[in-house]
Amino acid sequence: MDIRELLVKVKNNEISIDEAQKALKKLPYEDMGFAKIDHHRKERQGHSEVIYCEGKSREHLREIFKALIKENKRVLGTRADEEQYLYVKEHIPEVVYDRSARLIKYIGEDIAQIGNIAVCAAGTADIPVAEEAAQTAEFFGSRVTRVYDIGIAGIHRLFANIDIINKASCIIAVAGMEGALPGIIAGLTDKPVIAVPTSVGYGSNFGGLSALLTMLNSCANGVTVVNIDNGYGAAYTADVINKLINEKGKC
Amino acid sequence: MDIRELLVKVKNNEISIDEAQKALKKLPYEDMGFAKIDHHRKERQGHSEVIYCEGKSREHLREIFKALIKENKRVLGTRADEEQYLYVKEHIPEVVYDRSARLIKYIGEDIAQIGNIAVCAAGTADIPVAEEAAQTAEFFGSRVTRVYDIGIAGIHRLFANIDIINKASCIIAVAGMEGALPGIIAGLTDKPVIAVPTSVGYGSNFGGLSALLTMLNSCANGVTVVNIDNGYGAAYTADVINKLINEKGKC
Amino acid sequence: MDIRELLVKVKNNEISIDEAQKALKKLPYEDMGFAKIDHHRKERQGHSEVIYCEGKSREHLREIFKALIKENKRVLGTRADEEQYLYVKEHIPEVVYDRSARLIKYIGEDIAQIGNIAVCAAGTADIPVAEEAAQTAEFFGSRVTRVYDIGIAGIHRLFANIDIINKASCIIAVAGMEGALPGIIAGLTDKPVIAVPTSVGYGSNFGGLSALLTMLNSCANGVTVVNIDNGYGAAYTADVINKLINEKGKC
Amino acid sequence: MDIRELLVKVKNNEISIDEAQKALKKLPYEDMGFAKIDHHRKERQGHSEVIYCEGKSREHLREIFKALIKENKRVLGTRADEEQYLYVKEHIPEVVYDRSARLIKYIGEDIAQIGNIAVCAAGTADIPVAEEAAQTAEFFGSRVTRVYDIGIAGIHRLFANIDIINKASCIIAVAGMEGALPGIIAGLTDKPVIAVPTSVGYGSNFGGLSALLTMLNSCANGVTVVNIDNGYGAAYTADVINKLINEKGKC
Amino acid sequence: MDIRELLVKVKNNEISIDEAQKALKKLPYEDMGFAKIDHHRKERQGHSEVIYCEGKSREHLREIFKALIKENKRVLGTRADEEQYLYVKEHIPEVVYDRSARLIKYIGEDIAQIGNIAVCAAGTADIPVAEEAAQTAEFFGSRVTRVYDIGIAGIHRLFANIDIINKASCIIAVAGMEGALPGIIAGLTDKPVIAVPTSVGYGSNFGGLSALLTMLNSCANGVTVVNIDNGYGAAYTADVINKLINEKGKC
Amino acid sequence: MDIRELLVKVKNNEISIDEAQKALKKLPYEDMGFAKIDHHRKERQGHSEVIYCEGKSREHLREIFKALIKENKRVLGTRADEEQYLYVKEHIPEVVYDRSARLIKYIGEDIAQIGNIAVCAAGTADIPVAEEAAQTAEFFGSRVTRVYDIGIAGIHRLFANIDIINKASCIIAVAGMEGALPGIIAGLTDKPVIAVPTSVGYGSNFGGLSALLTMLNSCANGVTVVNIDNGYGAAYTADVINKLINEKGKC
Amino acid sequence: MDIRELLVKVKNNEISIDEAQKALKKLPYEDMGFAKIDHHRKERQGHSEVIYCEGKSREHLREIFKALIKENKRVLGTRADEEQYLYVKEHIPEVVYDRSARLIKYIGEDIAQIGNIAVCAAGTADIPVAEEAAQTAEFFGSRVTRVYDIGIAGIHRLFANIDIINKASCIIAVAGMEGALPGIIAGLTDKPVIAVPTSVGYGSNFGGLSALLTMLNSCANGVTVVNIDNGYGAAYTADVINKLINEKGKC
Amino acid sequence: MDIRELLVKVKNNEISIDEAQKALKKLPYEDMGFAKIDHHRKERQGHSEVIYCEGKSREHLREIFKALIKENKRVLGTRADEEQYLYVKEHIPEVVYDRSARLIKYIGEDIAQIGNIAVCAAGTADIPVAEEAAQTAEFFGSRVTRVYDIGIAGIHRLFANIDIINKASCIIAVAGMEGALPGIIAGLTDKPVIAVPTSVGYGSNFGGLSALLTMLNSCANGVTVVNIDNGYGAAYTADVINKLINEKGKC
Repeated sequence: MDIRELLVKVKNNEISIDEAQKALKKLPYEDMGFAKIDHHRKERQGHSEVIYCEGKSREHLREIFKALIKENKRVLGTRADEEQYLYVKEHIPEVVYDRSARLIKYIGEDIAQIGNIAVCAAGTADIPVAEEAAQTAEFFGSRVTRVYDIGIAGIHRLFANIDIINKASCIIAVAGMEGALPGIIAGLTDKPVIAVPTSVGYGSNFGGLSALLTMLNSCANGVTVVNIDNGYGAAYTADVINKLINEKGKC
Repeated sequence: MDIRELLVKVKNNEISIDEAQKALKKLPYEDMGFAKIDHHRKERQGHSEVIYCEGKSREHLREIFKALIKENKRVLGTRADEEQYLYVKEHIPEVVYDRSARLIKYIGEDIAQIGNIAVCAAGTADIPVAEEAAQTAEFFGSRVTRVYDIGIAGIHRLFANIDIINKASCIIAVAGMEGALPGIIAGLTDKPVIAVPTSVGYGSNFGGLSALLTMLNSCANGVTVVNIDNGYGAAYTADVINKLINEKGKC
Repeated sequence: MDIRELLVKVKNNEISIDEAQKALKKLPYEDMGFAKIDHHRKERQGHSEVIYCEGKSREHLREIFKALIKENKRVLGTRADEEQYLYVKEHIPEVVYDRSARLIKYIGEDIAQIGNIAVCAAGTADIPVAEEAAQTAEFFGSRVTRVYDIGIAGIHRLFANIDIINKASCIIAVAGMEGALPGIIAGLTDKPVIAVPTSVGYGSNFGGLSALLTMLNSCANGVTVVNIDNGYGAAYTADVINKLINEKGKC
Repeated sequence: MDIRELLVKVKNNEISIDEAQKALKKLPYEDMGFAKIDHHRKERQGHSEVIYCEGKSREHLREIFKALIKENKRVLGTRADEEQYLYVKEHIPEVVYDRSARLIKYIGEDIAQIGNIAVCAAGTADIPVAEEAAQTAEFFGSRVTRVYDIGIAGIHRLFANIDIINKASCIIAVAGMEGALPGIIAGLTDKPVIAVPTSVGYGSNFGGLSALLTMLNSCANGVTVVNIDNGYGAAYTADVINKLINEKGKC
Repeated sequence: MDIRELLVKVKNNEISIDEAQKALKKLPYEDMGFAKIDHHRKERQGHSEVIYCEGKSREHLREIFKALIKENKRVLGTRADEEQYLYVKEHIPEVVYDRSARLIKYIGEDIAQIGNIAVCAAGTADIPVAEEAAQTAEFFGSRVTRVYDIGIAGIHRLFANIDIINKASCIIAVAGMEGALPGIIAGLTDKPVIAVPTSVGYGSNFGGLSALLTMLNSCANGVTVVNIDNGYGAAYTADVINKLINEKGKC
Repeated sequence: MDIRELLVKVKNNEISIDEAQKALKKLPYEDMGFAKIDHHRKERQGHSEVIYCEGKSREHLREIFKALIKENKRVLGTRADEEQYLYVKEHIPEVVYDRSARLIKYIGEDIAQIGNIAVCAAGTADIPVAEEAAQTAEFFGSRVTRVYDIGIAGIHRLFANIDIINKASCIIAVAGMEGALPGIIAGLTDKPVIAVPTSVGYGSNFGGLSALLTMLNSCANGVTVVNIDNGYGAAYTADVINKLINEKGKC
Repeated sequence: MDIRELLVKVKNNEISIDEAQKALKKLPYEDMGFAKIDHHRKERQGHSEVIYCEGKSREHLREIFKALIKENKRVLGTRADEEQYLYVKEHIPEVVYDRSARLIKYIGEDIAQIGNIAVCAAGTADIPVAEEAAQTAEFFGSRVTRVYDIGIAGIHRLFANIDIINKASCIIAVAGMEGALPGIIAGLTDKPVIAVPTSVGYGSNFGGLSALLTMLNSCANGVTVVNIDNGYGAAYTADVINKLINEKGKC
Repeated sequence: MDIRELLVKVKNNEISIDEAQKALKKLPYEDMGFAKIDHHRKERQGHSEVIYCEGKSREHLREIFKALIKENKRVLGTRADEEQYLYVKEHIPEVVYDRSARLIKYIGEDIAQIGNIAVCAAGTADIPVAEEAAQTAEFFGSRVTRVYDIGIAGIHRLFANIDIINKASCIIAVAGMEGALPGIIAGLTDKPVIAVPTSVGYGSNFGGLSALLTMLNSCANGVTVVNIDNGYGAAYTADVINKLINEKGKC
């Protein structure tokens, strides 16, 4: 918002006061009543708005998809169930769905994948959350290296893969149960580690709380944490870091 | 309690009915009013009663020490503060104290140390709890190998010591913060691992809860857990296991 | 991994540098992409890998079973539901299933059962967890004595069975609701007691939390604890202890 | 409040309307500004108001004691620290103090002790709470039988005393750590058991929460529970029950 | 268990040593393998064993009912669902069921109802728990007065019924949401109040925790608390108290 | 309740003593056995009783609706599911239902809408709770301004609407996930803000606990909070405030 | 911020573009480095900034007081300890302190007190929080009626004062322990009730959590809640409501 | 560890088998008994080991400082209290201390500061944690921009500084109480935001839990979280990211 330019135009009578006032106040979103689509988010944050599908009615969902597709070549919906997908697909046949990652994707144009994000998962039951992270990062345009089933019950599997992991610009480490994986990776790398606790486990796991606390209390340096099962959130930040490192002139 | 023998004696008039009745009901403890000293615990469980000092008045503590010393050659008091120790020492000069482990010991006779228990600590701040465990096990007559400061921030320190740890009959693993150490050791050994969470840490550690949950949720096999900071309890069980393995005819 | 032998061979040109390098780095697991089967776990820990079935897709489950059966005569899957079992059975007809314990077993050869583990349950509703423990221990080759429905509401039932319990090398005590059973057994025995809290109960039981806290806070000596409903974990450790005591030359 | 009698008097002009209106609205308490002394509580509930001292300024405390002593022969203050006691004693020299139970008592007349309440404590560290219960019940006029240090680590000590306990009209069972005592007593008696969890313990005891949950989840019948460390509350209810049973014409 | 009598018989050769030994050790329960029926509970505690149905297989349930009916004229099962009931009824046609209270009852003989227990419920949604309490008390032989929907949103409804409530020997007060009812009743009565928190509510109610904490922290005297939704437990204790007060020679 | 007038009538023989006694004691509710309808609530609190439908049997619900409709022109039922609605409609065809807000409404007469309450929602998934609030306030006779989807991920959407929000007498702010919206609005307004946390979210949201704590800890002034998902409760208080401000002579 | 006026001035050359740009961006606060004093808060929210003293260094506190006094006639500091007060007084001798309410006040001019806020406290130990509320409201210019010690243990004390409470425009209800008072008042009034839980109590009170949950779950209508011990926050909102009702032209 | 090179040397007899074996096994740490100094951490992770001082004895602390200073030009100790500092300074006079940040620093050589990390704090009471972060980042060689007291109670203060914040490569956002700041910044930037909850606040803040949950549940993208009060951990990760972006050839 270039205020000076606007003021100069007012002074020079190149723009009316009404227009200037409107410009200074103008709403950078589209008001749909039940939703206000934030079309300027891409300018502000680097990514266009992503749709959190859970809990939204399928009619709302369809309209939000339509509004975003009008303005964007690529649109992503997270935490979508199959029923939501089928309804949206009926009206927007181009969308595709990944059942494991629960993502609905509209890919109107391909983009290059740059840099390298390592997505690590402790066990096979953590793969859905890891895939949400991996596919989100790929959707945003980051290259992804998957390293799955390297949990601490057989720690040599991690050691055999540590060189591959260390090649990435940023590491996402997904783990349920005791959640020790991110801390151990952090002790073996000089890259930022984004830890994702999962709700995999039972008993005193308390829906992922155990893994979350483990990760927050890690005595290894370089670990930051996102919410339980939040593969999307980890991918968002990893993509930001990966691009800042690998795109020229970003910083 | 050999009931048959008693009945035979009754039948044979070798014992009066009054005596027999008393014997069948007799109390295997010493009633001090405020405390009932359980002198038969050694027969029943293999160790004489140990005194949990915290919260006891110093006068009660002194009397309980005296009562136990009368019947035992070795007496142990746990979670004792210095003031309690000094008061007891005034009346029982033979007792000794370890400030870090917070143990008061009365050693009336030396005993052999058998077998081998490995006591591992993740960080230097976990040493007081580790020492409570190590010295308790030694008091009971187990040999102890200490391996300290091998937490996951520098996991090669653990790998350099894993052979020493694997030589033990039973492993005690003490850790605060994220508490990942016991699970990692368990993945590398074929011995039972007793995990002791400590209250070392801050923030969402919640007084050791984080480490406790980590240990309970370990995906590695062979880990059992005791209460937060309960080095004594870990040593008790480790000593039982160590002796069952290394003493002939125990089982 | 005998490093010295390898180095001698290098020196003596009995092995190429390439081969030596590969050997030093070689991966003791089978990489299936979605899973990395840890075939060396038996050497390292004494038991081959057990499959935690919950949350795994049935196709993954089938492949993991196949990979393990290729290398092992006996394979165990825990927390399997009936649907998983039926799918696996379609492809591997030899597997059998126990609905109460939720175990899938592939028994390619019989093994001797040695020693003695007592599995105690407080109430009849705790039997599924107790059976998971008992059958796991039997699968690993430990002899098991079952003692069920001896909870504290009628404590004489425990006393009538205490001699049988005390004959075991190791005791597993399973209890829900208030979870007092393991502590009471511990006060009456000189064997290690592994406590398993169950989620049986309601209200302020909070899914087994009440029983878990009771067991962690037991004032009786000799109790260690595993996660809520984790009969498998208790059996694993009990089997390790039972074999260390009863197999010659284990320690 | 006999409304009919009042209305008859109004009708018969034996009382003015103003007086009747006042009588119908009159306040059965003494308003001291910072406190409203409830002098009618004895009529309504059977006991005069007891002073909860914690958190009250010493000046307020003194005035409340004075107001209650004016109307009652016996006054009790709970959870008083020594400083509060010394200040009150300065102004009301007749008061006495029990440091362990933290009670201030003004005994203007002796009363008979009737019936029998058994106050049981699991460990010696639970004695302060048990004494708060025992002395409160005695203050209210119930006879008390104390049975201390009968916790489950040496359960034979409980069995040796169960006949004494069963003679009471009502049982108060005080326990910290795992808090199993009340449930075990309940399984052996036909009298109501009031359970008092104490904050004695450490680690996952969480200030008495562990014992509280144990008691609420007891699978034995006949247990009701009061707040952590609330010996007073247990004694109040036990005294009510004891008197209903042992005083003629109470019900 | 009259030990003296037995010893005299041994001495007088009226009984063999084998028989005496067996008598001293004899098991006062019936061992069904999966369950140990405690037939002596009536002597010990005054009520025969009640069946907690939740989580029991229907076959186990049927056998336990049969075993108890063999020895008792009246048998009660709690927390039974309709399916369990229908299966049991197929085999024991005399049983009846109350859907709201979830009780299965076998009434082989009628018994007199004595004394008076007031069962109060704050809202209509608390009625199932209140009915579990009321019908259990009636099953045991206590007379019950029901007072429902007197919660604090319209507190005059409580005041209009307080005289009826005060006529009881013991009061059960059932409430969900904020759970204030028992404390308010306690402030208006001289009878013991047993508080039952229910899981009725939502949001920060946390499954009844809110009501439970309210009741434990009541500043009114004379309240004791049972587990969330535990109408049965409240009735058990209320019945014990009611009978101690109203049956001659009970204490 | 004008006591004086009554007493004068007694004195003047205009009313019998029996009638006066009854009047002084008369019950301002209708006793239906399972429920006590509080018909005087409108006098006392300004609104007639609203029916909380959750957990009520459909027969009870129907009878309560009938009893309230007999005495009121407008009746509201909250948290009703569709099945409850359909059953009530069968017997009372005039009722209408809003599926999103889960409200059953009987509108026997229209009322004016006065003042202005702003109902703000952070995301589209919070709309059901916001609608419960908005429609409840409208039912009570307050005018409502809806401002939805103004959460902090695109905070300019809030700023663009702040002037509209500031025109209200009272603001209801509904938010799930992190729940920051009410605090931010409070920092930008001089009107009272009633915060409603919703259970929208996942992971460490813990069913709305995260949003609830955020709102309680807001460092902005002027925020008060209601229970999680309690749109009705927020509307009730907002309506009270709105009317006190906008109706003459209310205070 | 009147944008239009500014633009007209630019157009008319009454103001330079630099000045206009600065005005559009100008910071409505005073930057002190460690703090940014928000001098425009009075315009925006109706009250000038209040200083939360806890945790601030005394030097910072002094400077913030000075900065606010420069611009305001009345300045308030909350949660101040005596040491902070004494240091501030040394430099600003006009400030006064209330030890119970922990408030530092600078009163440079008197203001009229309007309307009426009732501040109710359940027990005498709740008075410090109640006084923080009462004195804050008076500082802001609201008239306050104090009604203390009307908790539910003697509920007639509340009924005797309900008419006085009902005269207020807004009610603040302060309670610890079980926290039932606000809900009971709400059931008897047609005014908004702001509930303040206090940390008064012990055991399962958990620092005020019990009272907080009670208040959030109140089944009575018209209750909103602030944070534990937050008398200030309650007073802020009560003052806003009181003034909206009693000041002409506010809405 | 270049295995190939080593093997070649063995083959070429340039190194003995003993030496090779030792090299392959050699310990990259210094064993001090109570501690194992990880001198290779710099190679592995990019930073030398930092000393967590809390809970360490002053003698241990001194020795660890000495050992690290021997190998490093710059050494940092965190969470040190003044007493620890004074003792260390006695033996190592070059160390300096920052009381607010609780850091002990040994600066043996100056290093260049590169890039830009913005450290934001919501309130003045959050400054100690913010300073721990800022000074740690500076110690590691990152340039830091401090922006303090921009919490949401006066959100215009944040907007006035958002351009400065957006210039950084990475943003650390520190907040207590409700903890909303990081989410709001994340909605306004395209840089990674590391959120640090602080324990500043009271009541239902629960020692920082409220702020922690807020940050984990942020609906704004790009937020990752560290433990409560863990300014050090945030700085470590921010420094890693800042250097990866601003140092050539790092990735």
